Amino acid sequence: MRERAQKIIDTCRQIAAMTEEPGRITRRFLTPPVREVHALLSERMRALGMEVRVDGVGNLRGVWRPEGAGARRIVLGSHIDTVPDAGAFDGVLGVAMALELVEMAHEMAQPAAMEVIAFSEEEGVRFSGPLLSSRAVAGRWDPALLEQTDEDGVTLAEAIRAFGLEPTKIAQAALDEDAAAFVEFHIEQGPVLEAEGLKVAAVTAIVGQSRLDVEFAGEANHAGTTPMRLRRDAMTAAAEWALAVEDAARAEDGMVATVGRVQVSPGATNVIPGVARVSLDARHADDATRESVLDSLTKRARAIGERRGVHVRWETLMDLPAVPMEERLTAYLLDAMEAEGLQTKVMPSGAGHDAMVMAARVPTAMLFLRSPGGVSHNPAETVREEDVEAALRVGYKFLERLAAEIR
Amino acid sequence: MRERAQKIIDTCRQIAAMTEEPGRITRRFLTPPVREVHALLSERMRALGMEVRVDGVGNLRGVWRPEGAGARRIVLGSHIDTVPDAGAFDGVLGVAMALELVEMAHEMAQPAAMEVIAFSEEEGVRFSGPLLSSRAVAGRWDPALLEQTDEDGVTLAEAIRAFGLEPTKIAQAALDEDAAAFVEFHIEQGPVLEAEGLKVAAVTAIVGQSRLDVEFAGEANHAGTTPMRLRRDAMTAAAEWALAVEDAARAEDGMVATVGRVQVSPGATNVIPGVARVSLDARHADDATRESVLDSLTKRARAIGERRGVHVRWETLMDLPAVPMEERLTAYLLDAMEAEGLQTKVMPSGAGHDAMVMAARVPTAMLFLRSPGGVSHNPAETVREEDVEAALRVGYKFLERLAAEIR
Repeated sequence: MRERAQKIIDTCRQIAAMTEEPGRITRRFLTPPVREVHALLSERMRALGMEVRVDGVGNLRGVWRPEGAGARRIVLGSHIDTVPDAGAFDGVLGVAMALELVEMAHEMAQPAAMEVIAFSEEEGVRFSGPLLSSRAVAGRWDPALLEQTDEDGVTLAEAIRAFGLEPTKIAQAALDEDAAAFVEFHIEQGPVLEAEGLKVAAVTAIVGQSRLDVEFAGEANHAGTTPMRLRRDAMTAAAEWALAVEDAARAEDGMVATVGRVQVSPGATNVIPGVARVSLDARHADDATRESVLDSLTKRARAIGERRGVHVRWETLMDLPAVPMEERLTAYLLDAMEAEGLQTKVMPSGAGHDAMVMAARVPTAMLFLRSPGGVSHNPAETVREEDVEAALRVGYKFLERLAAEIR
Repeated sequence: MRERAQKIIDTCRQIAAMTEEPGRITRRFLTPPVREVHALLSERMRALGMEVRVDGVGNLRGVWRPEGAGARRIVLGSHIDTVPDAGAFDGVLGVAMALELVEMAHEMAQPAAMEVIAFSEEEGVRFSGPLLSSRAVAGRWDPALLEQTDEDGVTLAEAIRAFGLEPTKIAQAALDEDAAAFVEFHIEQGPVLEAEGLKVAAVTAIVGQSRLDVEFAGEANHAGTTPMRLRRDAMTAAAEWALAVEDAARAEDGMVATVGRVQVSPGATNVIPGVARVSLDARHADDATRESVLDSLTKRARAIGERRGVHVRWETLMDLPAVPMEERLTAYLLDAMEAEGLQTKVMPSGAGHDAMVMAARVPTAMLFLRSPGGVSHNPAETVREEDVEAALRVGYKFLERLAAEIR
C-alpha cells in the first residue's frame, strides 16, 4: 500500500508540471495545461477499463463498470484547477486517489460501478464564482454564468468553445439517478490534524459562511490639534470591534471569525481616521450558532459606535448555510478508520469544496488528509506518504462496504 | 474695532480669490497668484508708510519706523501660502491682522518700529519640507534645500529665480539684531477654544512630535481552516496596540497620539492578516512626557507581540522636540487678555507654525483665535468677527506694552 501512496504523490507532482506559468503551478479553468492533464488522466482511466468523456463544462469523467455490477455507481473525485502559484495537492490529490482506488477495487470480491470526476473549476480564479463545474454535475447550473468574462474579456461560453466543447451540453453533465454516493478526498488545508498528530478526519459539514462589510464613519481631523476627548476616531472604533470579533469567535467552540481587510481613510500619519472599512468572515458548522454570534457582533458594533460618536453601517455580502455531509456515509468512514486502527476524528471543513455542491444532489462524504504545516494555496503545500496510505486504506474499506450495499 | 475686524476678514476673502485653481483656494510657494497677493499687500504697506521689500526666499516684508522710535523693532507676521483646496484664514489672517495693528499703532502715544512679514512658505506643499521661508528669516537656511524639486521637476532655486528673485540673497533674509520680538496671530485649527467657549488663547509651546512606523508580522492563513487558537493574526495585534495608544494618550493630560495609517496584507476577506503596518503620531508640549509615553507604548507592543506570537518592528521617522514660546511675551499676552476682560487661556499648539522656527532666533509669542467647528485646511474654514476683534484688542495692548519696553 505504501507503493500506491508513493505513486499517487508522483502523479500529483507530474501534474504540477502542467502549468500556465513555468516555475509556478497555475492552472486555471480550461487553460492549455488542462489538455495535458486530461491526456494523462484519460490514459490512466482507459488502462483501468473506464469509459471516458469530457462533459459540457470540461469535467473529465471516467466510468468503470465491473462485470456483474448493477447500474448504481459510486462517484469519486475532486478538482484539477488551481489558484495562482499553487501547491501540487489541492484537488489533484483527490483525483489521483480516486483512480488508485478504482485500481484497488479491481481486487474486490464484489465491486460496484464507479465514476471518477476530475472537476474543471473549483477555485473561482478565472471567472468570478467558484465551484462552477460541480454546479453543473449537481444539476444546479445557471446559464447566466456563461456571460461572465475573465480578465481578458473572454466569456465563460467562449472559453468552453475554445476548449472544443459545447456550452449547450452542460445540462447533460448533471448526475443521473444511478449515482448512489459522492466521496471526495482532500487535504485539510489547515493546521488541525497536524496539531493533534492525526493522519485523517471525516468531515461532518462544510461550515456555513457569512461575509460582511462594516463601515465605521467618525470624523477626520488634525492629529496634532484635536484633543483625545474631542475625537471621533473611526480606526480605534474598528480596532475595538476587531478585538470583539476575536473574543466572540474564541468563546464559541468551532467558530472562526476574521477581519482580513482594513481600509482607513484618509490614511495619513497626521490625520485622525475619518472612515474605517473592514471585512468580516465568520464561519461555523451550525447555522444558528453563526447567526447568533453575528447578531451579538452587530449589537456590539452599534454600542461601540454610540459610545464613540461613530456611525456604523453593516452590509451582508454573502450568507451561505452550512452543508452537512451525509451521516450514514460519514459513519462508514469512521468505521473504516476504526477498522484500520486510526483515531476516529471528525471535524468541519472551514473551506468550500466540490462536496459542498454535490451534497445537494447525492449522498456525500468527505475525508481530510493532514496538511503538514497547515500550508495550502502555496508552493510549499505537501502531503505525507503515510497519510495517503492511511486514507487509501480507509477509502478501500469504505468503498467495499458501500459497494456491498448498492450492488 | 468691529469695523477693523470686518476689514481684516474682507481682506482674507479678497486674497482667497488669488488662487492657482479657479473655484478652490490653492496658493503654493511662489506660484503666479502670489504676485497678486504681494501687489495687494505692498500697496497697503506703502499706504501705512512702510518700507517694502521681497527677500531672497520670497517673503514680503514691510518695515514701519515711526518718528522718534528707536532701532529695535517688533516683528509680526504669518504665511500666505496654502494647502490645496484650503480655507481663507490659515496664515493670511495673521498677516492681515499684523497690518491692521500697524495701522492702529499710528494712534499710539509712543509706538516702536515694526516689521510685518508675509512668509512665502509654511505648508510644505510644493517642496518636500515645510517652514522653508521662516528658516531663512531665522538664519537657519540650508543651501542644500535649493536642490529640492517640485512635482514638475522645478528646483527650489529655479522657482525662486522664475519669481524674479536671487537665491544667493537668501542669507540676507535673516533677522538682524534689532529684531526684539516676533508675534504671530493664527487660527487654532482645532476644536479646543470652541469647546470651551473662548475667543483666544496664548500659545505656551509648539508641541514636540514623534512619528513612527510600527510593523506587526504574524502569519497569513486561511480564514476558514485555521482555528482561533492556532492563529498569529497581525491585525488583531495591531488593533490591541492601537487601543493601547488611545488609552495612553487619554491618561496623560495634553497628550495626543494617533494611529492614522493602517495597511494590512494580504488584505483579503478570507485570509488572516499576516502583516499590519501602522503609523503612530505622538505629541506633547513636554518632551519627557512624550518620550515616557512612547517608551511605555514600545513595551506594550512587545508584550502584545510576545503573547500573540507576532513579531514587532519599530522605526522612528521623526523626533522633534517641543518649542516653548517666550514666557515673558506670553505673560504680556495674558495680561492683555485680562485687561480686555477675556479669560486668560493658555494652550499648546499641536501643529507647527512659523513661530516654531522664529523662536530659535528671537523671543516669540503666539496668539490663537477660535476655529469654528475646529475646521481648517478645508474651504469651510472660518473665523468669527468678534474673535478677530478680541484678538486685535489683545494685540494692541500687547504691542503698546512691548513698544514702551523696547523703544
